[in-house]
Amino acid sequence: MSRLLVECVPNISEGRDPARVDTVERAIASAPGVLILHRTSDADHNRSVITFAAPPDTVVEAALRAVSAAAKLIDLRSQSGVHPRLGALDVLPFVPLQGLTIADCIQLAHHAGQRIWNELAIPVYFYEAAATRPDRVRLEDVRRGEFELLRERAPIDPLKAPDIGGPELHPTAGAVVVGARKILIAYNVNLNTADLQLAKDIANRIRARNGGFPGVKALGLPLASRGLVQVSMNITDFEASPVHVIYAEVARLAALAGVEIVESELIGLMPKKAVEMAAAGLLKLSDFHSSRVIENRVDELSFSK
Amino acid sequence: MSRLLVECVPNISEGRDPARVDTVERAIASAPGVLILHRTSDADHNRSVITFAAPPDTVVEAALRAVSAAAKLIDLRSQSGVHPRLGALDVLPFVPLQGLTIADCIQLAHHAGQRIWNELAIPVYFYEAAATRPDRVRLEDVRRGEFELLRERAPIDPLKAPDIGGPELHPTAGAVVVGARKILIAYNVNLNTADLQLAKDIANRIRARNGGFPGVKALGLPLASRGLVQVSMNITDFEASPVHVIYAEVARLAALAGVEIVESELIGLMPKKAVEMAAAGLLKLSDFHSSRVIENRVDELSFSK
Repeated sequence: MSRLLVECVPNISEGRDPARVDTVERAIASAPGVLILHRTSDADHNRSVITFAAPPDTVVEAALRAVSAAAKLIDLRSQSGVHPRLGALDVLPFVPLQGLTIADCIQLAHHAGQRIWNELAIPVYFYEAAATRPDRVRLEDVRRGEFELLRERAPIDPLKAPDIGGPELHPTAGAVVVGARKILIAYNVNLNTADLQLAKDIANRIRARNGGFPGVKALGLPLASRGLVQVSMNITDFEASPVHVIYAEVARLAALAGVEIVESELIGLMPKKAVEMAAAGLLKLSDFHSSRVIENRVDELSFSK
Repeated sequence: MSRLLVECVPNISEGRDPARVDTVERAIASAPGVLILHRTSDADHNRSVITFAAPPDTVVEAALRAVSAAAKLIDLRSQSGVHPRLGALDVLPFVPLQGLTIADCIQLAHHAGQRIWNELAIPVYFYEAAATRPDRVRLEDVRRGEFELLRERAPIDPLKAPDIGGPELHPTAGAVVVGARKILIAYNVNLNTADLQLAKDIANRIRARNGGFPGVKALGLPLASRGLVQVSMNITDFEASPVHVIYAEVARLAALAGVEIVESELIGLMPKKAVEMAAAGLLKLSDFHSSRVIENRVDELSFSK
């Protein structure tokens, strides 16, 4: 755990044909030093998320190979799904994983954006920490209107023009939204009720936009096949808004309605620090820190020698 | 985290003079490949615990240096404290930490015992997994009567004779109780009451000996200076008896008496797996396993390449 590593999480607009997702994954894995960490596909969304890690000197090359492979396989003119999308490879965030800062990842995002246009002729928008305009910080603002509207507007409306390349979108692959952000935890809590309004009310109370937990986006969703409802969240700053504090607040709000938590779900991966914070918080452990974990202490000492 | 590592936890009968404990720690650290993980001293107990890790080919040498240093500094004829003890270096467990089994640690314990007698003329008893007689599995059985009684009885009573060396104990350093065991978690839960009987009742309910949690030893103790009571535990099999399950049961039993948990305390270190089990258990995380932690997944893939 001593070398420099960037996490990169390409979202591609294909969630139904595993062979195509395999092809994109293989393209990523063909770059030197890549570790494929996780992959998930959703047929309704028609979307897949591949999470990989790579050193900073090869992560952009791996990302380029993903964009190129997705653009060859996916034609947005005939693609459909419930998830909004603007590109064949739709979203490409760079995340500091080990030994790097968010500033490093902004640089990598900008470098990747330039190469995507120069080498693949696909225009690029920058979002979150890599945004170059305040109205493009939020991914949902950048993507509003999706491929169908933006291919019309980008060439004629400077407010909608890509940050790099264009102004026309790529005719089949659209554009890539490239960003830099901190680690994100996708986390859902399932409640033993079919009362969708309760899940929506809880989501309303906890999301950052309504004055809830900083960096938390939340939705109330039905899990029809199980007769349950879900509070579905993205936690973009787990140090400010720890998973276990959110869990406890959802439990408290549900209990006010006589409802209990059935289980919670992690989508993809979570960082070690969030696991340690949850254990220490829920056990009310006094004077706990990462060095009290044997393996962490061994690592610390091994690398300091 | 890929190389072989043994944890070794010498308990020495000196908890009041930090300079002497420093000397023992330096003796340990002078062996090749040693990582000093943690150290704690208690003046009332007059006892210190040094936790270190080393590769199997140097851990016995490091342990020998600890025994030798402690024997030079500590004279049991004038040592006193509330904690029972039989040796200057009193207890010496070997614990499989990384890439080794308990069988490997039994071999290391037996090898260390032979060297302690051959090179330092201090006799040795074996306990827990390294015991060679069923009546010596439990440390408290081996140590019953302490230095003062056993130096009288060991030479004349075969039931009390050392496993290696003797039969006389060393005149000032006593004997070393050498063992092999799994990782142990020393864990206390503090309750917001001064009712010592409640802590004792809860300890009675949860300890293995009374049919409670497997591998759990528990005592109810007063924390007089804070006006609280404590359930103080050793968890010798945290996979069978997870920390968070014990925490929840203590909370439940306390709540029946209208009492709450103020905090819990870890003494020394705990293994990563126990932290992950606690987080997953208390968050009711479905389908969680160690590979869902980003850093674990990166390590797995890095070492498989």
